[in-house]
Amino acid sequence: MADAIITLTTDFGDGSPYVAAMKGIILGINPQARLVDLCHQVPPQNLNYTDHFLEAVVPCFPPGVVHVAVVDPGVGTGRGLLYVDVRGHRLLVPDNGCWTGLERPGEPVQVRKLENSTYWKHPLSSTFHGRDILAPVAGHLSLGLDPALLGPVAKDWVRLPRHQAHLDAATGMVTGEVVFIDHFGNLITNIPSSLFGGKPPAHVWVGDQSVPAWVRTYGEAEHGTLLALFSSSGNLEIAIAEGDASRKLSARVGNHVRASLQAGKRPAG
Amino acid sequence: MADAIITLTTDFGDGSPYVAAMKGIILGINPQARLVDLCHQVPPQNLNYTDHFLEAVVPCFPPGVVHVAVVDPGVGTGRGLLYVDVRGHRLLVPDNGCWTGLERPGEPVQVRKLENSTYWKHPLSSTFHGRDILAPVAGHLSLGLDPALLGPVAKDWVRLPRHQAHLDAATGMVTGEVVFIDHFGNLITNIPSSLFGGKPPAHVWVGDQSVPAWVRTYGEAEHGTLLALFSSSGNLEIAIAEGDASRKLSARVGNHVRASLQAGKRPAG
Amino acid sequence: MADAIITLTTDFGDGSPYVAAMKGIILGINPQARLVDLCHQVPPQNLNYTDHFLEAVVPCFPPGVVHVAVVDPGVGTGRGLLYVDVRGHRLLVPDNGCWTGLERPGEPVQVRKLENSTYWKHPLSSTFHGRDILAPVAGHLSLGLDPALLGPVAKDWVRLPRHQAHLDAATGMVTGEVVFIDHFGNLITNIPSSLFGGKPPAHVWVGDQSVPAWVRTYGEAEHGTLLALFSSSGNLEIAIAEGDASRKLSARVGNHVRASLQAGKRPAG
Repeated sequence: MADAIITLTTDFGDGSPYVAAMKGIILGINPQARLVDLCHQVPPQNLNYTDHFLEAVVPCFPPGVVHVAVVDPGVGTGRGLLYVDVRGHRLLVPDNGCWTGLERPGEPVQVRKLENSTYWKHPLSSTFHGRDILAPVAGHLSLGLDPALLGPVAKDWVRLPRHQAHLDAATGMVTGEVVFIDHFGNLITNIPSSLFGGKPPAHVWVGDQSVPAWVRTYGEAEHGTLLALFSSSGNLEIAIAEGDASRKLSARVGNHVRASLQAGKRPAG
Repeated sequence: MADAIITLTTDFGDGSPYVAAMKGIILGINPQARLVDLCHQVPPQNLNYTDHFLEAVVPCFPPGVVHVAVVDPGVGTGRGLLYVDVRGHRLLVPDNGCWTGLERPGEPVQVRKLENSTYWKHPLSSTFHGRDILAPVAGHLSLGLDPALLGPVAKDWVRLPRHQAHLDAATGMVTGEVVFIDHFGNLITNIPSSLFGGKPPAHVWVGDQSVPAWVRTYGEAEHGTLLALFSSSGNLEIAIAEGDASRKLSARVGNHVRASLQAGKRPAG
Repeated sequence: MADAIITLTTDFGDGSPYVAAMKGIILGINPQARLVDLCHQVPPQNLNYTDHFLEAVVPCFPPGVVHVAVVDPGVGTGRGLLYVDVRGHRLLVPDNGCWTGLERPGEPVQVRKLENSTYWKHPLSSTFHGRDILAPVAGHLSLGLDPALLGPVAKDWVRLPRHQAHLDAATGMVTGEVVFIDHFGNLITNIPSSLFGGKPPAHVWVGDQSVPAWVRTYGEAEHGTLLALFSSSGNLEIAIAEGDASRKLSARVGNHVRASLQAGKRPAG
C-alpha cells in the first residue's frame, strides 16, 4: 500500500511546470500512484537544505514509500543518479549527497546506480533528469518493479560534509550551528538534547548574543522574549514567543550556537 | 469514502518540513488516507484568519471528511485539543476558537476533548502536537475509529469574538468590516447580502473612501474602476476590475465598511 | 483509471480558499476523485502564461485525465465555458484562449459548450464559475459522465494570438521571444530547436545583449556565465550557471531573442 505513495521534493518552486510535468509522467506509468508534495521551495540548488529536510521528514513516513528528490545542479554532467533503500525508506536522488543525514554509521544501506535506461523516458534531455529518469523510475517502482533491475549496486556515493555539534568536556561548553530556519523564524540547530543528558543547558548563545530564557514550549515565555528550548525533533532551538527570532538576530544557516552545561560559563567570544 | 479524506490547514508555510512530517505520520497509520492540502499560508498564529478560512471552505466538502487545522500559539500549554462534529463535518483542532464561524446558534455540535493518548505518537513533544496528536488521531479516524474513544465530551470550548455586521434601522446604514483579503486584493466583508434583502445597496464606503460602482460581476466594470458586488460567498465585496483594491485603498482586515440602503445617505464620518 | 484524476490550474494563489472550495465541491460529487495541484500561481488573469503552462504540462499526462484551468477575467460576463478533448487530454476551461497552444493545425479537436446546468452547483454565483460550474462538471466527468451531455458541440472558440519564431532564410537569422521565465530565472523562448536543424546556433542575443556560451547542460559552463542551450522542452533557453539570468538581463516575457545560424552574423539592432 505504502509502496504506491510517491513523494516529491524539489527546488522548482510551487506551481512550477517542471513539477507538474513530473506528476504527469508518473501518472502516465502508474495512474494509481498517490502523489504527495513535500516541498518545492528548497532554495535553488541548495544541497545542505535538501539534506536536512530529508533527514527530518523521511523517517516520519512508513517504509516502502518512494521519495523523489530533485535538487540537481549537476544535471546532464557526469554525476550519477541513485536508488537508495535506507531502513526501508526508498529514495530516488542525484548522487550529490542530498541524503547524507539519513545514513547512520554501521547501518546497512542498499544503493544502486540508475543505469538501466529501459525505465527512462526517451528521448532523454540533458537538463531535466527529474522528468526523464527519476519520475518514470518512481512510477515503475510504485508498480512493484524489482530495484535490482534499475542498475548495478553502488559501492560508494557522495556524502556532504556535516558539522557535528561537540561537547568540550573540560569546559562543559557545547558548540554547534544553525542548520535550518523555519517559516516562523525559529532557528533549529545541529545540537541534540542528548549532549545535555536531556537536561536544559545553563545558558545558550547565538554568536555573541545571549538567549535569556529556557522554556519547555513557546507559550511559557512572555510575548517577544528570546528563548531556547528542545525542538520537536529533539535538537536545541532558538525562538521568540509569537515573534521571528531569525529577523531579530539577523541569523542565518551556519551561525554558531553555543550552550554551557554549567551556570556561570561564558563562551570564548 | 469521504471518511478517508483528510485535509490540512496550517500556518507552517508551503514546503514546510512540519507539514511533510504530518503527512508521513498520517500515512504511516493509514496508507490509504487521501491527503488534501487546503492552506499552509495562514498568517503565523492568526486565529481569526483560520476561523474565516474554515468557515468559508469546510462547508464545501462532503460530510465525513476529516479536517485537521494546526494554528496553535498555545501548543504545549494548558490549552486542550478537540474533535468536533459540526453538521457532519469533522475537525481536529486546538481549542483556541479557530472554528468559531462554523458553529450556528441552536444547532447541535458534538465536541470531544482529545485526552486518550492511546492514539497519539510517543514520546509526545511539547511543541508539535500537530504531528504528535492531531495527525495520528486523524489517521485513526480515517480508519473508522469511533470518536467516542478519543476522549470525554466537552461541555464548553473557546469561541473567538466576532463582529457581526449590523443594520441601523433608523438610518438605513449597514456597518461591518473587512474579514478577508484574497490573492487578487479583493476585500471580503462580514456583511451578508441578506441585510439588504438581496438588493444592491445604494452606496458603499470603505473607511471614508466612496466606492463608485455597483456590479454583478467584475467584468461589468471598466478596467481600474473601484467596485462593489456580492461575492461568491454571498457577502459584500469591494474590488477593482483587473486590479488590486487592497493596494489602492491601503486596506487591511478589520477596516470598517459601510453601506446605505437608500440613496443620498452618507456615513457619519 | 486516469479518468478519475483531476488536475487544477488557477491564478488564485497557493492556500487560497477558492482552490480549497473547488476541491471540496469535486470530492462532494466524486469522493474517489484524485486531485493533483498543478499551479495556483498563474500571474493574476494572465492568459498567455496559462496558455504556455498548459501547452508544456498537459501533454506529460496520460489521456483521460481531466484538467481544470480557472484563469477567468471574464467570469459572469457573456464568455462561454468549454469542454475540450485534444488528443485525448480533457480540459474544462473558460473560452478565453487559455489552451491555444495545445491545438495543432489539421488535428481534430472535440469542443463542447458547457450549457447544461444539470451538472452545475446551484444557486450559481456571478463571480466564481470555477467552483459552481467547472468543479462540479469535473466531478461528474470523473464518474464517467458522457461529455455529450454537457452541452452542444462548439464550432469556434477564442484563440490567443501567438507569435511564432521565424527564420529569415536570406540572413540566416532566427527571431523569437521569451515566453516563460522559470523559478531559477531561466528564459524559455518560443524558438524550437527544429529551426536550427537540431544544431546549435552560431550566436544568440537577448535584446542587444550577447550570450557568449553555448552548452548542452548548465553544469558545462562556469559559475556565473551567461549561456544558451536547448531546454528540456526542446526550445532555445538562456540561463546562467548557478545564477538568475532574468535578473542579470532584467528580462521579461515578450523580450526579443535572436539567434544566427552562421558565425559572424549580427542582429540588425
